[in-house]
Amino acid sequence: MAALYTTNRVVAAPLVVTRRHLAAAQPRGIVANSGNANACTGEQGERDAEAVAAAAAKAIGARQEEMVVASTGVIGVPLPAERIVRGLATVRLSRDGAADVARAIMTTDTREKTSSREVALSGGTVRIGGMAKGAGMIHPNLATMLAFISTDASIDESVLRGYVAEAADASFNAVSVDGDTSTNDMLIVLANGASGVRVAGPDGTEFLRALTEVCVELAVAIVADGEGATKLVQVRVSGARSRDDARSAARTVVASNLVKTAIHGADPNWGRILAAAGRSGAEVDDRLASVRIAGHRAFERGHPVPLDAPGVRRALEQRFIEIELELGLGAESATAWGCDLSAEYVRINAEYTT
Amino acid sequence: MAALYTTNRVVAAPLVVTRRHLAAAQPRGIVANSGNANACTGEQGERDAEAVAAAAAKAIGARQEEMVVASTGVIGVPLPAERIVRGLATVRLSRDGAADVARAIMTTDTREKTSSREVALSGGTVRIGGMAKGAGMIHPNLATMLAFISTDASIDESVLRGYVAEAADASFNAVSVDGDTSTNDMLIVLANGASGVRVAGPDGTEFLRALTEVCVELAVAIVADGEGATKLVQVRVSGARSRDDARSAARTVVASNLVKTAIHGADPNWGRILAAAGRSGAEVDDRLASVRIAGHRAFERGHPVPLDAPGVRRALEQRFIEIELELGLGAESATAWGCDLSAEYVRINAEYTT
Repeated sequence: MAALYTTNRVVAAPLVVTRRHLAAAQPRGIVANSGNANACTGEQGERDAEAVAAAAAKAIGARQEEMVVASTGVIGVPLPAERIVRGLATVRLSRDGAADVARAIMTTDTREKTSSREVALSGGTVRIGGMAKGAGMIHPNLATMLAFISTDASIDESVLRGYVAEAADASFNAVSVDGDTSTNDMLIVLANGASGVRVAGPDGTEFLRALTEVCVELAVAIVADGEGATKLVQVRVSGARSRDDARSAARTVVASNLVKTAIHGADPNWGRILAAAGRSGAEVDDRLASVRIAGHRAFERGHPVPLDAPGVRRALEQRFIEIELELGLGAESATAWGCDLSAEYVRINAEYTT
Repeated sequence: MAALYTTNRVVAAPLVVTRRHLAAAQPRGIVANSGNANACTGEQGERDAEAVAAAAAKAIGARQEEMVVASTGVIGVPLPAERIVRGLATVRLSRDGAADVARAIMTTDTREKTSSREVALSGGTVRIGGMAKGAGMIHPNLATMLAFISTDASIDESVLRGYVAEAADASFNAVSVDGDTSTNDMLIVLANGASGVRVAGPDGTEFLRALTEVCVELAVAIVADGEGATKLVQVRVSGARSRDDARSAARTVVASNLVKTAIHGADPNWGRILAAAGRSGAEVDDRLASVRIAGHRAFERGHPVPLDAPGVRRALEQRFIEIELELGLGAESATAWGCDLSAEYVRINAEYTT
């Protein structure tokens, strides 16, 4: 088992409860609700999360502390735990229920998000399967990210933790819908060893690659389905002096409201890309930098390139937009993903909670 | 003289030129253009900025290196320097031209932004006058902030620099329209000593207070007139463990897209305020925190307070919205200002540069 939680200092009750459980026991089940974050709900929030865990544990024949609890939704409203507990009494376990779960955790997600890989290792084949929910709640709208991944590989917990941290950094930590970090984000990776195939030595590289692919597919699916999103944006920064610089620059560009609105409007306003990179904290020298937008060269080592404006505009009207920023300072690179910023995003998030 | 420039690593040519000039001479004039940032324009950009400086210097009888050059507008388009130089040949100096200048530097600003104070010091009265332009360009839209302040006080340059840094930190550094830092931001404070009144000793406190008031008025005017803004938002964080914590929390809350859209929609979704503070890097413990929104208690030391929803909603429909966040951890406080995020912001910024 490996778990990653929100970096927000305000942590929802289900995360507090899950952390406590995972410190005491290996998890055997996950219970998730949507529509209510159970955050900023005081001690009652923790009691409610424990009540849900207890009911879910009973439903699957596990102990209470063997349950992971996840919630996503509006903050500061007491969880209607009794309704969830009543519902859990009717739950039946199923080997084929994964697709149902992926659908059930959707909120304003417009499609379910799943990803899987089979990995041939020296001792046999292992499977990795994951599901996620993303950007949008029935009630407004924390863009909470919940991701649950399981594998039948047998793997040391400390090794798995390292892999999950690395895979998450290249995926869930590299996507942005609106720059707001939820109080409820949670990534849980469960490994039950059912395949009998051990991940060790050089096999680890293969396993990590597949795990990263699953995480990237889920993360990219989240931003592609972001609130009000009409386009998926990929920002590739290369030639950075350090890995951290590459990541900071890529993540700042993809999260910039000005870049996002320009892409929404199919406006080849590449200056905003350089300006966002320039404020990212990364080393940037515009005299050495080059920018490509949707495959078109716009800026080349410090000099604007005359743009085929209608051509770029057509390219920017596609659903997948690629931005490439070469910094000319080193050999490090990174990729980040995001979406455009639309009036629909504003509409969704300006709606009443009340 | 004291100057502050953008912290963006990508720095526009006029800033490069201005820095060079101010290292060599005391400034005697400022020449500013709007509509073109002269950023990411290579060596030609610097030559263009110098040509403008030379023509402006000639117009006012100064030397080229005595000129400050400021630009704001679209990035990556060569400055039409010849047109500016031609225009400068027709410029006449005037003692009464300040209001004209404040209007001339407007772009999509809907009103001019000026502020002034008279300060009675032990040696006599000094005057401080300032103007600024803000959030929006004719061409899209870097929310470049240009502010020019002058005073007839006589003050040591090193003292003035300290005061300007402090005043800016409480004002221009505490406002956000969209979180994007321009390549062209510039604050210039000129002190010519014409009053013959020296600022020293305890008079310094009075002078700093007046300077800060001028800076806050200009900065708040900028966000109140932000692109697409319909509301001015003031976030006051108190009870923070440190000054830095208070500032980080206030600035993160005011810049949060989710907080901004909620306020746009008059939605009392105060959970987003706590969530934004929680990701700001500041020490936050939601069990100790309290939130007031537009004067209404919403969350009190860890517990949601039943809201008078229609009342809060009416309050949130006003043009000035106050958010108060008491962290309950210490004695430090800070204020930040911003605006709501509207579909109009998206429309303005999604328009074509081409």
